[in-house]
Amino acid sequence: MAEDGIPGRIIVVGTGLIGTSIALALRERGTEVLLTDRDAASLAMAVELGAGEALPDGAVGEPAELAVLAVPPAAVAVTLLDAQKRGLAAVYTDVASVKALPLKQAAELGCDLTSFVPGHPLAGRERSGPAAARGDLFLGRPWALCPAPESRPEAVAVVTALVTACGAEPVVLDAAEHDEAVALVSHGPHVVSAAVAARLTGAGETALGLTGQGVRDVTRIAASDPRLWIGILTANATPVADVLEAVATDLAVAASLLRDGSEGAATHVADLLLRGNAGRSRIPGKHGGEPSSYAVVQVVIPDRPGELAMIFQAAGIAGVNIEDVTIEHSPGRPLGVLELSVSPGAAERLSEELRARGWSVPG
Amino acid sequence: MAEDGIPGRIIVVGTGLIGTSIALALRERGTEVLLTDRDAASLAMAVELGAGEALPDGAVGEPAELAVLAVPPAAVAVTLLDAQKRGLAAVYTDVASVKALPLKQAAELGCDLTSFVPGHPLAGRERSGPAAARGDLFLGRPWALCPAPESRPEAVAVVTALVTACGAEPVVLDAAEHDEAVALVSHGPHVVSAAVAARLTGAGETALGLTGQGVRDVTRIAASDPRLWIGILTANATPVADVLEAVATDLAVAASLLRDGSEGAATHVADLLLRGNAGRSRIPGKHGGEPSSYAVVQVVIPDRPGELAMIFQAAGIAGVNIEDVTIEHSPGRPLGVLELSVSPGAAERLSEELRARGWSVPG
Repeated sequence: MAEDGIPGRIIVVGTGLIGTSIALALRERGTEVLLTDRDAASLAMAVELGAGEALPDGAVGEPAELAVLAVPPAAVAVTLLDAQKRGLAAVYTDVASVKALPLKQAAELGCDLTSFVPGHPLAGRERSGPAAARGDLFLGRPWALCPAPESRPEAVAVVTALVTACGAEPVVLDAAEHDEAVALVSHGPHVVSAAVAARLTGAGETALGLTGQGVRDVTRIAASDPRLWIGILTANATPVADVLEAVATDLAVAASLLRDGSEGAATHVADLLLRGNAGRSRIPGKHGGEPSSYAVVQVVIPDRPGELAMIFQAAGIAGVNIEDVTIEHSPGRPLGVLELSVSPGAAERLSEELRARGWSVPG
Repeated sequence: MAEDGIPGRIIVVGTGLIGTSIALALRERGTEVLLTDRDAASLAMAVELGAGEALPDGAVGEPAELAVLAVPPAAVAVTLLDAQKRGLAAVYTDVASVKALPLKQAAELGCDLTSFVPGHPLAGRERSGPAAARGDLFLGRPWALCPAPESRPEAVAVVTALVTACGAEPVVLDAAEHDEAVALVSHGPHVVSAAVAARLTGAGETALGLTGQGVRDVTRIAASDPRLWIGILTANATPVADVLEAVATDLAVAASLLRDGSEGAATHVADLLLRGNAGRSRIPGKHGGEPSSYAVVQVVIPDRPGELAMIFQAAGIAGVNIEDVTIEHSPGRPLGVLELSVSPGAAERLSEELRARGWSVPG
């Protein structure tokens, strides 16, 4: 093991997006990485991408310091048992989005839990597979660690070093607490997004022509891979079902109140909107700090090369740091509205700089 | 009236975000604009912003060519009746997000429908009031027009000229069809977003620390003003209730299937995710064209002034047009991942240009 605690030699079981990304991140730190995947094509691609060497089928030789099991939630326990029988490594971790069920299954199968530290990097992409992998996938992201009561402290230290080496922030919490948290902030919203998007399958062309940024945002994650997600949802069934039922109840009640039509009913629907305001404001802002309160500067931009460069150049000249940026699309026109989030003190300076250079910036 | 059909003199009743924005857009075209609002402070601010002059309380003089009733849905019919009694204008339109109920109420109140052309610009912001107004709010956006059977063609022509003068695209459709469409693509998703956000009011700090871009996107519109929205939702109650019930049913069924836990049940949940994929893919892409299939180039960026400028400059040098841009936040770290959407043929060129300049761009 290197002095900074980063394992000198690891094995990655499963060369999908997450496994290959971990391998790439560690290769950049000089770690020796051995790869294995039951899909030969996926394994070959990961090797080709420089993520490591293929693990020989037969004798493994000296156990690695760490094996990362980057397999779907339902496969974690059997993969762990198999890896431990083969003596692949001294310490094991997984990366599944669900933590309680795989741990329970591992215990039932008789896996050695002292060397196992369940983990979950909160990073992903709408694409999957080794081709989408990148060594910087985990930079600055939270990475949940849910040690079992049996997990040895030395094993936790090795897995924590892995997290840090990938540039992520370790967040230690209980497996059940983890599963409820991700049901609330990820798995539940995912199904809701799909349910809203599913309504659009029956929409006419005219209705689709009236879509704005709101429904685009609400349904963005509905574009994700259903095969990956069904495994996550079924493995975290109860917490996800709890969230979906609560949302379904709120929506059914709102529908019934709207049909009721009385003023009292309207007040109750407004309560839901107010609770929505309150919940939204609890999402932490950029850099994990307090919810952000940036000022937004809007610029109308023609859709041609170089336009954005000139705007960002002007911002640089004004010494203004752009904290966030979005483009509001303009259906049917080669125009967009660029929204630049900046610190409130810098908004006027940026607006003036842009106006002086001929852009239309509302006051 | 000017030669291009743009009214030479209009009255705007209601100086909120939409009314003031319309006034600003027409002032830029040289139209004489008279403003009125029951809230004196709002009116004064709109005048100060250069949106027009205050309409004198007493004698109105020569009727204007057009009066725009920029009031909440519930106030449209009474405002129309009052305006027609005062003889404010030759033609009337409104801008409410709901079309059938105000029209029905106007008919019941005995308004003259021959001079009335209901309208709805599909534009808005998370902020409201005259201070948030901008003359370019409607640029490239759809603007629904729902003429009543009684509406005279000349009246429709005047309102169409208004839409065009504001830079928007007129979309003519039936009031009931409009209301069902916006329930599906705007009002329904709005309540769903609020219901997901409302769940977060009970979330622990740890859960909130695990939030990613997905839940941020799903809940963005939950930050909107509940007072504005309750008026919209109650005026479009039945179509919105239909959408909410359908979504609630899908979610309740998904919850029940997840609790069931059988493989058959999982297949049904996967069906919902697949329907979500299908619905999401129907949302038109930028410029109202086919759903976009841009390639995404990802760049890791330190959070410091000038960094984005240099990246967009490099894109300009490579002759690559950036179609869309988002920044993925990195909680707890001064780093972000910039995602640049470009035409598939330009992705490799851009990636190489950025790599040559020292940025980390995954392959």
